[in-house]
Amino acid sequence: MIQAIDRAAKVLELLQGARHLGITDLALALDLPPSTVHGIVKSLREHGLVAKERGGQRYMLGPTLLRLSNVYLDTLDVRARAMRWTQDLARRTGLSVRLGAPHFADVLVIHHSLRPDDSQQMLETGVAIPAHASAMGKVLLAYDVGFQQTVFERPLRSLTGDTITDVARLTLEFPAITERGSASETDEAVLGESSVAAPVADARGDIVAALAVVLPTSQAPASDDVLGALRETARNISRELGAAVWPPRVAPAED
Amino acid sequence: MIQAIDRAAKVLELLQGARHLGITDLALALDLPPSTVHGIVKSLREHGLVAKERGGQRYMLGPTLLRLSNVYLDTLDVRARAMRWTQDLARRTGLSVRLGAPHFADVLVIHHSLRPDDSQQMLETGVAIPAHASAMGKVLLAYDVGFQQTVFERPLRSLTGDTITDVARLTLEFPAITERGSASETDEAVLGESSVAAPVADARGDIVAALAVVLPTSQAPASDDVLGALRETARNISRELGAAVWPPRVAPAED
Repeated sequence: MIQAIDRAAKVLELLQGARHLGITDLALALDLPPSTVHGIVKSLREHGLVAKERGGQRYMLGPTLLRLSNVYLDTLDVRARAMRWTQDLARRTGLSVRLGAPHFADVLVIHHSLRPDDSQQMLETGVAIPAHASAMGKVLLAYDVGFQQTVFERPLRSLTGDTITDVARLTLEFPAITERGSASETDEAVLGESSVAAPVADARGDIVAALAVVLPTSQAPASDDVLGALRETARNISRELGAAVWPPRVAPAED
Repeated sequence: MIQAIDRAAKVLELLQGARHLGITDLALALDLPPSTVHGIVKSLREHGLVAKERGGQRYMLGPTLLRLSNVYLDTLDVRARAMRWTQDLARRTGLSVRLGAPHFADVLVIHHSLRPDDSQQMLETGVAIPAHASAMGKVLLAYDVGFQQTVFERPLRSLTGDTITDVARLTLEFPAITERGSASETDEAVLGESSVAAPVADARGDIVAALAVVLPTSQAPASDDVLGALRETARNISRELGAAVWPPRVAPAED
């Protein structure tokens, strides 16, 4: 680990959390002298990774991150293959569709197809949802022991009164999830919002993403039609990625 | 400039260009020993800024960039204010609408409202367009001498046979652009695609973004209706940001 790069990454993470910070705020949070922090911020600014507030003295994340993330999205084979299918699934179900991948203890939304109606909706690409509170997260956890270790390393945070924060209770669901190839959550991340998710596998049999349909809790649990369309879409994307079987088999524990 | 951070940023830029690179490729491009590059890549991976190819030995951009860029977008006041207006402009004109900001010698698309039809379209948020080949770029250049210096520092690249690469010829247009508050390009960035753009100003009178309507060249030049709707929208966004006058006045040259 190179110390300067570690510190620079931490500056980006602090700005991600707080959005606008001065040198003093950053120095306090990193327990470093202001002059050191100033050097880090200056180097990040040169590359557009950090920007200075207009007419202020505080710093924010910079435009280079948007450019890099656009290329990051383009490199994702699963996203490229999934895009057409997720739009079709949104159209068939009349619901919003998410594709998510593990990111530390969260599920990162790597693609989002909006509900096919005229309502104002936020594009959720780039949003991170705590894995334990998400149907996509439960799918990814059920298949991946390494992800379980990352997520269960720290106490599980409650997001709504209905978030499951007990590891034993969550884990108990995993065999049934891999058995039927789908997981669900009800009001566990956002009150009034529920979702069902299914795994997406590649040619190596690895689970590379989870596909979810999001529905108002008033319409939960998902109908057999919605569940069928979700499973069919997850199977089709997996096939395009070269997966031989779906639902995927659970990988034997690694030595 | 802290050397390690500079090198780390260059690794990200190289991966942005090439998408998949091994340690040897990176070492060659940076003229550094492979062991040094390995340390940089390892530090970036710890924070999810770089990821290793599945089942390979090459590296790619990592998911943390998507998370950071999502927060970057949320911090942009101009984007937050513009979103509702750009969707409305897309609906009124039946055309795709872009909001762009300067990024080194490019215009970075910070928001994109799709054409309101059922056709498959790529979301262009995060795409960088060389400023001299873009209507948004011409607007930003016409108002900002600092941006002119950055863009004209290097020879202008031709993207199509119609890209204007002569600085004198481009500069000649600037007084008319600031006079009427709009610029256009025809086939200059992409063959078959044309656009018109107008400036978005904030309370300080700074041009913080350019707003563009994109149309097929077969429909160019934009009709008076399209041009009127574009100008009205740019004025409305500027007003929301606190701008007193529109089209904005050209700032007097700085001392």
